[in-house]
Amino acid sequence: MAVESNTLLVIDDETTVRESVVAYLEDSGFTILEAGNGAHGLEVFDQHQPDLVICDLRMPKLDGLGVLKKIRETSPETPVIVVSGAGVMTDVVEALRLGASDYLIKPIVDLEVLEHAVNRALENAQLVKDNQRYRESLEEAIQTLRESLEELQADQKAGRQVQMKMLPATPYRYLDYQLSHHISPSLYLSGDFVDYFRLSEHQFAFYLADVSGHGASSAFVTVLLKHMSTRLKREYTTRKSNNLIKPSEMFSYINRGLLNTDLGKHVTMFGGIVDTKANTLTYAFGGHFPFPILATDKEVAYLEGYGLPVGLFDDATYNDFTMELPEKFALITFSDGIIEVLPHAKLKDKEEYLLSVIRGGAITVEALIEALELEQLKDAPDDIAVLVLARNMS
Amino acid sequence: MAVESNTLLVIDDETTVRESVVAYLEDSGFTILEAGNGAHGLEVFDQHQPDLVICDLRMPKLDGLGVLKKIRETSPETPVIVVSGAGVMTDVVEALRLGASDYLIKPIVDLEVLEHAVNRALENAQLVKDNQRYRESLEEAIQTLRESLEELQADQKAGRQVQMKMLPATPYRYLDYQLSHHISPSLYLSGDFVDYFRLSEHQFAFYLADVSGHGASSAFVTVLLKHMSTRLKREYTTRKSNNLIKPSEMFSYINRGLLNTDLGKHVTMFGGIVDTKANTLTYAFGGHFPFPILATDKEVAYLEGYGLPVGLFDDATYNDFTMELPEKFALITFSDGIIEVLPHAKLKDKEEYLLSVIRGGAITVEALIEALELEQLKDAPDDIAVLVLARNMS
Repeated sequence: MAVESNTLLVIDDETTVRESVVAYLEDSGFTILEAGNGAHGLEVFDQHQPDLVICDLRMPKLDGLGVLKKIRETSPETPVIVVSGAGVMTDVVEALRLGASDYLIKPIVDLEVLEHAVNRALENAQLVKDNQRYRESLEEAIQTLRESLEELQADQKAGRQVQMKMLPATPYRYLDYQLSHHISPSLYLSGDFVDYFRLSEHQFAFYLADVSGHGASSAFVTVLLKHMSTRLKREYTTRKSNNLIKPSEMFSYINRGLLNTDLGKHVTMFGGIVDTKANTLTYAFGGHFPFPILATDKEVAYLEGYGLPVGLFDDATYNDFTMELPEKFALITFSDGIIEVLPHAKLKDKEEYLLSVIRGGAITVEALIEALELEQLKDAPDDIAVLVLARNMS
Repeated sequence: MAVESNTLLVIDDETTVRESVVAYLEDSGFTILEAGNGAHGLEVFDQHQPDLVICDLRMPKLDGLGVLKKIRETSPETPVIVVSGAGVMTDVVEALRLGASDYLIKPIVDLEVLEHAVNRALENAQLVKDNQRYRESLEEAIQTLRESLEELQADQKAGRQVQMKMLPATPYRYLDYQLSHHISPSLYLSGDFVDYFRLSEHQFAFYLADVSGHGASSAFVTVLLKHMSTRLKREYTTRKSNNLIKPSEMFSYINRGLLNTDLGKHVTMFGGIVDTKANTLTYAFGGHFPFPILATDKEVAYLEGYGLPVGLFDDATYNDFTMELPEKFALITFSDGIIEVLPHAKLKDKEEYLLSVIRGGAITVEALIEALELEQLKDAPDDIAVLVLARNMS
């Protein structure tokens, strides 16, 4: 394959040799520059930056090795083919060590061989150039990707800040009760959400919600949840009657709110209201899974209940379950992201494992994070939330 | 610098030469393998994959050039130093052309020269390897970055889908009125939002809101806006009294909602209610800028009004402005992102330019997109929204 329209510089003090080489290569389609000695050759080289140099080794004043050294210094990528008289192989060897691309022995009987050497050297130089360009394009691609990524990350981080602001201060203490939580988002933004707040002097509410999907689109819905629960709280606290708002009503209200806004997102929820005077918990289920785990002195077991996911069905209704709260207990609620990261194959084994971890004494958010290695998690497929309601346990 | 603990293979049929080379290099800290002929040398090479080969050129059976060729084929990165008898320079030249790293002429008088050649070749091979590894790490980095970016982009796109679902169908026609909009988010998610909906048989409401900031964190607030406006609309349409809800009330309601949810985000808004029986527009300003532009047969001018941003001040109140609507008009509202992309230096010139574009006949969303080149925009610093309310104009 002839690499045409390349410019070659031929340096030779023997005019006849030079002219025959030049004529042949010009016929082959190359653009030719010529020089009758090394010093002139270097001048032409500096001025025109040819693509390849053919240089006689034995020349008066500046010989071929000198020319080669100089070109190697200033333009290490330009291929140089050296031409040597027969019997001066040491020069050829030296030239090759200095980085000459190829050599030819005078007399050059077959100029086709020269052309072949020229093309091979040019192709090789092109490969080196392509290689360099490829590497540069790789570096550039990395730069562009990194910038795009940083922009998106900055955006998601800003979103995460806003989302963090909506979460309650943890832990929250009221009398001998304590609420605390932890959320590990699978990306930056989380579709898991918790909230807890005081309703009256002897009541506080809490819930854990898991929006379908994860990431930005699910995080949107957490803003709505916050807004709706804030509203409910305000309505309740400004009510004259002071009738206890029920978790089932709260779930119905959120169900309607989600359906009306028409986001195509639903939520699974568990939430309740604690009465610290009666020491009762009234709770509701909104399709939440896994079931919350109640740990007391006597036993560690899943809490029972049922209820439809919230924001999915127009006619969904919810039930309130009421239980007495023991002197000492911890009620631990996970979002379903926890199920996906447990190594067991069967759901039954995962559920059993969670119980065993809690039986083993991990009944605070911190202990659960450690026992379940939630901090070490990378690339969790879904958000993971833990909410612990405890009494006399810390 | 000696590159120590490298394994070298010495292939030479002259035992004394080989042994002296081996002894010297072992003293220098290299691990040495040896072979007394080319065939054995290749076997050892295949088995142990040494870091460098020193090979005599003249050997019976398989000579040094044969060994070199074979090694070049199977392991092109391994440096090979050839050793030649004096006076057989053509072999050396051929070896260098075949890719030998270096050569030495027998007798090797100074073994330090050999060690020097070895170290140089090893360093060079290391450079080539580093280079290769660097390129691989670049490609790997690109892959990782691309995956992270794709994950975030997918997340943001999913969020965008949810956000798009909240926007009203455009255009919306009612009697001789028409509403239409366009939003160009600066990233994927937008902090600009519009909504319009019917309130009664002869009333419809509309607003354009611009949440402070842009991206995910601002997009959160648009979900709230949608929820709040949906709620207001429902409350209004299910009201027994059918008293007209006022834009000022709507703004106050949203002001409280934003402050209560405590997101630290505020909104600038323009919105109103059209009465198609009385042909009036009642509107309110919530710190919105630039002012909407009213285009009639007679003139094109900015609408006047005032009002505080929404969600910033607890005690903000809003005013209603009422105007009669002409038979033919277009009311064009931009979010302030438009100001940032206009090339003019002064705000006054930007405002004048918007008027001139509309005077020039661009009074539909499509015509404005074209005239202001909104589709061609890349890397706009902020979201850009356009909302057009028109009567008898299309």
